[in-house]
Amino acid sequence: MLVDRVTLLEVGPRDGLQNEAQPVPADLKVALVERLQAAGLRQIEVTSFVSPKWVPQMADAAEVMARIQRQPGVRYSVLAPNAKGLEGALASGADEVCIFAAASEAFSQRNLNCSIDTSLERFADVVAGAKAAGLRVRGAISCAVGCPYQGDVSPEEVERVVKAYRAMGVDHVGVADTIGVGTARQVQSAMERALRHYPLHEVSGHFHDTYGQALANVLASLQMGVHVFDASISGLGGCPFAAGATGNVATEDVAYLMRGLGIDTGIDFDALVDAGQFISEALGRPNGARAAKGWLARRARQLTTPATRAC
Amino acid sequence: MLVDRVTLLEVGPRDGLQNEAQPVPADLKVALVERLQAAGLRQIEVTSFVSPKWVPQMADAAEVMARIQRQPGVRYSVLAPNAKGLEGALASGADEVCIFAAASEAFSQRNLNCSIDTSLERFADVVAGAKAAGLRVRGAISCAVGCPYQGDVSPEEVERVVKAYRAMGVDHVGVADTIGVGTARQVQSAMERALRHYPLHEVSGHFHDTYGQALANVLASLQMGVHVFDASISGLGGCPFAAGATGNVATEDVAYLMRGLGIDTGIDFDALVDAGQFISEALGRPNGARAAKGWLARRARQLTTPATRAC
Repeated sequence: MLVDRVTLLEVGPRDGLQNEAQPVPADLKVALVERLQAAGLRQIEVTSFVSPKWVPQMADAAEVMARIQRQPGVRYSVLAPNAKGLEGALASGADEVCIFAAASEAFSQRNLNCSIDTSLERFADVVAGAKAAGLRVRGAISCAVGCPYQGDVSPEEVERVVKAYRAMGVDHVGVADTIGVGTARQVQSAMERALRHYPLHEVSGHFHDTYGQALANVLASLQMGVHVFDASISGLGGCPFAAGATGNVATEDVAYLMRGLGIDTGIDFDALVDAGQFISEALGRPNGARAAKGWLARRARQLTTPATRAC
Repeated sequence: MLVDRVTLLEVGPRDGLQNEAQPVPADLKVALVERLQAAGLRQIEVTSFVSPKWVPQMADAAEVMARIQRQPGVRYSVLAPNAKGLEGALASGADEVCIFAAASEAFSQRNLNCSIDTSLERFADVVAGAKAAGLRVRGAISCAVGCPYQGDVSPEEVERVVKAYRAMGVDHVGVADTIGVGTARQVQSAMERALRHYPLHEVSGHFHDTYGQALANVLASLQMGVHVFDASISGLGGCPFAAGATGNVATEDVAYLMRGLGIDTGIDFDALVDAGQFISEALGRPNGARAAKGWLARRARQLTTPATRAC
């Protein structure tokens, strides 16, 4: 038996747009968030309070947060990796702060320029500050099944970060296959380690489609009872620093799966597809959601008379 | 517990190339089949003995079959929808003949220009002729979960064709989501109907990635014990007559999943990726296999130094 209800955490505005090479105007970011919430998404990772020197795309974090017409019942998350970021997050009225540590030592060294232990020590202050201010904290674990530098990542390495998160008071743990190399069993093994320390509703999966495995990994997680998943509208994003990495799993593809399984996501699928098409057209990029492309074609009734052949 | 071994039936040379708009020379078809068998594939759907008026791409069926340097242990299948096709198939020395009926009446009428019953009656003679000549017969069931004309297709509609196949002596039944609209549970329901009349090793899944669901559907089928899957090298093919249809699930993507699950396919993954890259470059089309793209990037060690950010 699968669960009746799944929550999708939309990461497109942050994890997706962050990786856009072209500058994205704040207007467009605000419009995207508003379309996403109108489509029924109730958890949205909006932006990132990080140094504009490192991530110029997120320099307008405060402006974007200020301008969104917020809806009751929607949780607005922001990334805040340090004290300065937390200050911005608190000032912006975010509901939740997200931090991220790697399960791979090699990735941590090269991506965060410090060891896992050092990154966790730094995050502890952010967590304490956020909790003191009444905010929820979500801790992502990047490279939870594979790393571009060290290769396989063991469940023990994942559990180490999970335990540290638990000890510092992180509310929710996100198991992330950052480079999309994981397959179903590896993902389940990583998830299982998170579930040793967190309840089902406080563990989520974050998958990339680099090797085409994302939706199979969602299904494998769902079969364990996991029912919160990150997804990115029209597959926005990806990791430009990881070899061959394509985008996050598309929100439309995950929503289509849930729809087919009869699992409620609270999402209006037509409105979701429209939101993805809106941002894809605005950015002049192809829509990376397969389900959206199929749905749009179906909607346009692009049916021609078939000839005699099997497909 | 999943199975230890999975068989991939490569359909790229037939189902894939058939849909190529540009003419593909017989040389290239032969070279592709030989690369596929060298990569370890043991079941290959080579070509189609159909009217060149309908499918000009397959007009060289006899030539291709004659020129392949066959390997012992490889099963060479051909499509043969009628008596003339069977004649060609028999003359070509094929090991297996494939026929296809639709589970959807609307699709049968529009795709085969006849009712399901009429198509099955016609196939009965092909099956009898093939069996008399000692050939295996594989019966595909197209639109086994959804149809572009009638929408949902019921498990009962699938079972009707399964029973007819069984009655006429078809050895193997292929459950095909021709237009890629199915999700995990629908696929399992269709499979379950096939398994009421055929043993596990004589039921296979054929999935398209139109809505991004193919690999999740492979996983869902695998969890039922199904262990034969059609796949198309580099995702060649698709159904140009179905709305928004993209290609068959890529062989590389399925092989990567099995590899990750520790399931033996007998495939040399590097050689498989090379075969996909070979045909993609020869046709001047992008490689449609995500796992191949990820693998190639990894192989090329296209790693650059990451900056400070989470992916």
